[in-house]
Amino acid sequence: MRKVYLSNIPRQDALKKFSAAVEMPRRTEFGIVGNSTGRVTARPVFARLSMPGYHAAAMDGIAVQADKTFSASDQNPLILKPESDFRNINTGGAMPAGFDAVIKVEDIHLLEGGRVEILAPATPWQHVRAVGEDVVAGELVVPAGHRLRPPDLGVLLAAGITEIELLEKPRVTIIPSGSEVIDPGLDREKGTVPDFNSTVIASYLLEWGAEPVVHPIVPDDVRMIRGALTAALKNSDLVIINAGSSAGEKDFTYRVIEELGEVFLHGIATRPGKPTILGQVHGKPVIGLPGYPVSAYMSLEWFARPLICRYLGLPVPQREKLEATLGRRVVSEVGVEEFVRMTVGHVGGRYIANPLNRGAGVTMSLVRADGLLVIPANTLGFEQDEIVDIELYRPQSELRHNLLAAGSHDLIIDLLGTAIKERDPRISLSSAHLGSMGGISAVGRGQAHLAGVHLFDPETKDYNRPYINKLLPGQEVHLVNLAYRMQGWIVPKGNPDRVSAIKQLADLKLSFINRQRGAGTRILFDHLLREADLSPANIYGYEREEHTHLNIAAAVAAGTARVGLGILPAARAFDLDFVPLVEERYDLLLSNSFFNSPEAETLLEIIRDRNFKQQVEAMGGYSMRDAGKEQ
Amino acid sequence: MRKVYLSNIPRQDALKKFSAAVEMPRRTEFGIVGNSTGRVTARPVFARLSMPGYHAAAMDGIAVQADKTFSASDQNPLILKPESDFRNINTGGAMPAGFDAVIKVEDIHLLEGGRVEILAPATPWQHVRAVGEDVVAGELVVPAGHRLRPPDLGVLLAAGITEIELLEKPRVTIIPSGSEVIDPGLDREKGTVPDFNSTVIASYLLEWGAEPVVHPIVPDDVRMIRGALTAALKNSDLVIINAGSSAGEKDFTYRVIEELGEVFLHGIATRPGKPTILGQVHGKPVIGLPGYPVSAYMSLEWFARPLICRYLGLPVPQREKLEATLGRRVVSEVGVEEFVRMTVGHVGGRYIANPLNRGAGVTMSLVRADGLLVIPANTLGFEQDEIVDIELYRPQSELRHNLLAAGSHDLIIDLLGTAIKERDPRISLSSAHLGSMGGISAVGRGQAHLAGVHLFDPETKDYNRPYINKLLPGQEVHLVNLAYRMQGWIVPKGNPDRVSAIKQLADLKLSFINRQRGAGTRILFDHLLREADLSPANIYGYEREEHTHLNIAAAVAAGTARVGLGILPAARAFDLDFVPLVEERYDLLLSNSFFNSPEAETLLEIIRDRNFKQQVEAMGGYSMRDAGKEQ
Repeated sequence: MRKVYLSNIPRQDALKKFSAAVEMPRRTEFGIVGNSTGRVTARPVFARLSMPGYHAAAMDGIAVQADKTFSASDQNPLILKPESDFRNINTGGAMPAGFDAVIKVEDIHLLEGGRVEILAPATPWQHVRAVGEDVVAGELVVPAGHRLRPPDLGVLLAAGITEIELLEKPRVTIIPSGSEVIDPGLDREKGTVPDFNSTVIASYLLEWGAEPVVHPIVPDDVRMIRGALTAALKNSDLVIINAGSSAGEKDFTYRVIEELGEVFLHGIATRPGKPTILGQVHGKPVIGLPGYPVSAYMSLEWFARPLICRYLGLPVPQREKLEATLGRRVVSEVGVEEFVRMTVGHVGGRYIANPLNRGAGVTMSLVRADGLLVIPANTLGFEQDEIVDIELYRPQSELRHNLLAAGSHDLIIDLLGTAIKERDPRISLSSAHLGSMGGISAVGRGQAHLAGVHLFDPETKDYNRPYINKLLPGQEVHLVNLAYRMQGWIVPKGNPDRVSAIKQLADLKLSFINRQRGAGTRILFDHLLREADLSPANIYGYEREEHTHLNIAAAVAAGTARVGLGILPAARAFDLDFVPLVEERYDLLLSNSFFNSPEAETLLEIIRDRNFKQQVEAMGGYSMRDAGKEQ
Repeated sequence: MRKVYLSNIPRQDALKKFSAAVEMPRRTEFGIVGNSTGRVTARPVFARLSMPGYHAAAMDGIAVQADKTFSASDQNPLILKPESDFRNINTGGAMPAGFDAVIKVEDIHLLEGGRVEILAPATPWQHVRAVGEDVVAGELVVPAGHRLRPPDLGVLLAAGITEIELLEKPRVTIIPSGSEVIDPGLDREKGTVPDFNSTVIASYLLEWGAEPVVHPIVPDDVRMIRGALTAALKNSDLVIINAGSSAGEKDFTYRVIEELGEVFLHGIATRPGKPTILGQVHGKPVIGLPGYPVSAYMSLEWFARPLICRYLGLPVPQREKLEATLGRRVVSEVGVEEFVRMTVGHVGGRYIANPLNRGAGVTMSLVRADGLLVIPANTLGFEQDEIVDIELYRPQSELRHNLLAAGSHDLIIDLLGTAIKERDPRISLSSAHLGSMGGISAVGRGQAHLAGVHLFDPETKDYNRPYINKLLPGQEVHLVNLAYRMQGWIVPKGNPDRVSAIKQLADLKLSFINRQRGAGTRILFDHLLREADLSPANIYGYEREEHTHLNIAAAVAAGTARVGLGILPAARAFDLDFVPLVEERYDLLLSNSFFNSPEAETLLEIIRDRNFKQQVEAMGGYSMRDAGKEQ
């Protein structure tokens, strides 16, 4: 009954096939020059008028007849009479008939009776802007297929052109489909999915020069999808259906395109982006985009953008590329081209790139990304410390000042990022959530500027230093306190299980949700276990991991876990109860070279700033009493 | 009476002084998320809802309880009953209560009675998207001062945010001033200047994130300028007056700003851009921009853009830089920082940059420019073949395919540029008008791909080859005919002086306008002179030079010359008469490496294309009988 993917075609082959088989005939329209930045000319434009349209003074001064001034010199000043010998003239003024040069106001002496004296001759046509100096009638002003920029408008207007034939923007209709899909502004009942993809797709299309139209949401109903597609085709150059492009029992996109026209392929050999459909109806391109947002946006860029660029006669823009050192190993499957979103920062003279969450559903990975790592289909990925090419989402000039924070994550790090940008817009901050242990080793390897760490050492009862000494022996680093924060049990409102000590988790077999290995909070939990003479086997759900405090709270709020260990603000975000357990020290580990940089100085200034401290403490569960003190 | 410049301050110092002294207080407003691409967030935004908001299936398949599947194996298939043991589920569907894993549709066998068989156990939470996998409630979604891109909108909507607090766009009023200035759509009487600067300035401001308002044109009248400025200040964060910023008798900008507020400086040490005024009124920044377009736009970028970026909390974008070899010497004055617009192409593995017309009034130089050469104030310029840094106006990836045409210019070269872009949008063509001789040597030095040449050799009666053999001895180059074209006298309508032979120019002392040294047309004229036993001294205006046929025609049309030598289309463009004199061969010289490139192949295909030939011949004065033939 259910179909599986028809194909697993390399992306470039898919595009070639698709481009060759579909057409988007160009239409043109006339537009007002003044409103045409970013638009593309339909044909070459030739100047109608010259600019300047007359011989004009290029300086303030006097217009003279050059051949009457040849005798003037220092020794032999020449006196000129108004009207017959010279005329006053300002920059831009028309040269009077019979006058062919301008002498600058600085070079003349005013005498009585309106006469002037000059000490040097004028050469013919000096300081005169000839007719057509800027634009000359008949010359090519802008070619066809030219995307207009502000100075182009100036030249067109100067050339006497106020209306211009432009390529009409290609019209693209986006059909959001899915019975579970609702308007993003509506209340979200369980099982509904807000349609944010249409907004993102429309924004991209607009940016690329198309005119997007979003169709109302269509439920999973063949007849209705067919109707929507048929209607959209009447007035579109390209139709995008999102989603239903997979092979599930409610995925009708394939069927409808095939019924009305032709499917060229279903499934490309990429991750994300695999369940893409490329087809045509009445010769017009139809794209079935995957439902997962990252897949959808990538596939859009691979297949819709080239069609739009071809229509507009523009090259498909290439992203700036940068060589960076991989902070972590990135593995991939052979046979699939994979696209990994990366953070990139400039640490100790090298660019360092780290992978973000690779899930096709994790839109945040696109928001956080500084660039993209493309892993070709024929490789298994890249090793840590390997040099790789990153396609940049932000200009390299910005990434030079991008701070990389690794290690444990805390909301304060996000606030620091916002505050530092406020002080110096050139500086930004990207976070890799590696856990405290991962953070220490990233700083140690010179692959992060700083790391949040909160590792309790039961032997010394000290935080962080014992771990750093062990992991980075002999290495000079700096440890600065950021905050003390309260760790505790995150439990449903009202604490129905009356959780207080860890023993209860075991006794009541409460469904627990754990943090990932290497996280300070996990190490704390293991310490509590040992103190209570318990083992992981006693905890139901010990193996179930999340990477952030907020995700722990989310699981408890969703009812799939009864308890988790985390911080107060996370519990508050989900209106859960919080049972305080232990106050822990949360420090920032800074590499020595970063510590001595102006960026670190700004960072520490912020941490020590009274307003910033107040802002953090107001969130609850934090004490900033030692914030900014070296530990 | 007239003032001279008050200052000659380095640009960076001027900006520092200006930025420190003026303020543009921020305002915020709420906007619909869907319309907010390109806008800047006023404060950090935290997720209101999680995405997904419930535990959702990540695959099409069945939802199961993982701990009930542990016994399943190849040897020991497990049979599951609907409802109690499993539920059908599609990607995105909510996990039913009590179920904690999904088995993919590919991994199940349907049996009779709705039962299914599995051959492997499910691990808890496999193929389940946890609540908050993408966005988790409470997390920072976008920081403050963040310019929103399409995926940001997606994440905001996913996080349940449909309205967002944005920085209001800074309001900038542009006051065009000058009694000679008219609306660009009006008929141009002599002495009037169309106001195209306001359109260009407004387009730049819009691009940079501001909201421009163009005030009606104000004549050179102190009272009216004062009134316009006062009114503009009420509703603007920044006011720009264009122009009247110089020191002429009608330049009132300085006076008005000083009267109402304060002028910080008048005159910066740059070329173009010198006559800039920076001041404040009621603490608000006021900029007096120069009237010359190139000066105005550069000054706008130096002084208005940083203020707008500061208001928006964004770094001032840096242009991509490229190291290029200078094709020609570029000299400059010490003490002045100079900005030269450049063409850039990739010839024989190197990027080659050539200066364009340096006039502050030549807007076309900005249209043609691929980048900018900045000559620091403390240098005298750069030598030919020196490696210089070019700030790029177009991405380097495009310039890799930018063909450099040097030599003599003909409209056909422009048409070729348009036609080649039509065939392959990645290829573009930039022209340097060096004259035939300059073109041969540029190709010879590996600094241009091709050059237009039309050099008559009186000894051999041949075209071009004799010159190439002399200038590039032993060098392998290719010569391909582009067209034959008619050269003749360009004279006023009706040919009032009855010009036919060159002798008449001398006899009647007709005011002549000549082409620049090295131009084929000049060499032809010199040949005609020698043939008639005349010398340059016999020709009135022999020293007055223009660089193009169209500019020759423009001078004749303006009445400042009675006759020039040029081609028919130039005469036609100005509705002048044309007296045919000689048909000349106009060839393209191609370097050997370029000749063997795919780009040259495309170029030659176009030249030999029947439609292209017809298009050229339709302009008049051209014969394409040998077009594309090697010479």
